[in-house]
Amino acid sequence: MGKITVDVKREVLRANDMLAEALRREWASRSMLVVNLLSSPGSGKTALLERTLEILKGRMRVAVLEGDIETDRDAERIRAKGVEAVQITTGGTCHLEANMVAKAWERISDRDWDILFIENVGNLICPAGFDLGEHLRVVLLSVPEGDDKPAKYPKAFRTARWMVLTKMDLLPFFDFSPERAVSEAKRLRPDIRVFRTSAKTGEGVEEWANALVEEYRKMYG
Amino acid sequence: MGKITVDVKREVLRANDMLAEALRREWASRSMLVVNLLSSPGSGKTALLERTLEILKGRMRVAVLEGDIETDRDAERIRAKGVEAVQITTGGTCHLEANMVAKAWERISDRDWDILFIENVGNLICPAGFDLGEHLRVVLLSVPEGDDKPAKYPKAFRTARWMVLTKMDLLPFFDFSPERAVSEAKRLRPDIRVFRTSAKTGEGVEEWANALVEEYRKMYG
Repeated sequence: MGKITVDVKREVLRANDMLAEALRREWASRSMLVVNLLSSPGSGKTALLERTLEILKGRMRVAVLEGDIETDRDAERIRAKGVEAVQITTGGTCHLEANMVAKAWERISDRDWDILFIENVGNLICPAGFDLGEHLRVVLLSVPEGDDKPAKYPKAFRTARWMVLTKMDLLPFFDFSPERAVSEAKRLRPDIRVFRTSAKTGEGVEEWANALVEEYRKMYG
Repeated sequence: MGKITVDVKREVLRANDMLAEALRREWASRSMLVVNLLSSPGSGKTALLERTLEILKGRMRVAVLEGDIETDRDAERIRAKGVEAVQITTGGTCHLEANMVAKAWERISDRDWDILFIENVGNLICPAGFDLGEHLRVVLLSVPEGDDKPAKYPKAFRTARWMVLTKMDLLPFFDFSPERAVSEAKRLRPDIRVFRTSAKTGEGVEEWANALVEEYRKMYG
């Protein structure tokens, strides 16, 4: 029993990684920066995206793939910003896989894009195990969740190149130490780059959006 | 490939459910109420438990099984309240399964208990699929997460008999409608019982703790 499970899992992961690698190459050949956003439910992925899209408007051609278990509410929120969004409804699956992303991507691959955001399913655990072909993995941590989350959910923080602290406006109401959160994340990934943001006040969002543009320019000059 | 995965999954689930049923019977035969707590990371499961344990102290014999991917910080927090806690570290697995619970339970089954809390891994998706033999499944939803979460993560809310809204003291700072959260949860499970709590101010915690004692009395009179 156990052995079969492991072998099947390994095959699934290997197929996923091969497809992810092919996607990564296709996107690079089309000069795209693809960003995979990971976080708990309610950490503010969509709110951060909404603000970010306002800043990037007119500067970059941006599209969004929205991962959810059910509902297409997040895609609706993005479309309300005048940005192309494709909803991926996983129907119970707790993470996005490369084949779901490939199918959604097909629907907008006829046009040219500079940045493609993939908003993963709200889950700090399972999505960390699945490469989607992204060039940049970003983990969000909201102030209300607590500064102990990197230590408790290490894989998401170990595999992310950037970490965005969100809902920073709530700092006065929580026993949350950004320094502790950052030092725990750095224990897992010493080179992790950190942004401190609030989608409500706008704090740090411009810095984060500019860093994305820089990242794009570094790749495609 | 796909077919094998499904069959293995089904076998795993069937074995889980059989063991869960055996645990449920054992616990009932020992006049225990077993409560499975589900929520996102950082929704305040441990904080609610800490407060609840203070209220139940001297009235009920309580123990806690603490599920986490890594670290034993939550068990330490519970022990600081003078309450027996067994840490279950899943080592990457995104939910608790009945066999993990059975092993942890063995370590304290030599003594008598009235209420056993199982704090599941912080994850609003995967734990919903695994019966742990509990008599009462409770889902927590914190104000900062947003009132759209029942619709987006339906299985957790459909399988829970009770829902506890947490961090209610933060209501002034969020665009969170308890009425909307409740009505979305009731669309999924019309008989869901709702508590509104704040571990910080203590709001509603006594009502919730008393309801647990009532539930216990209803079962074992």
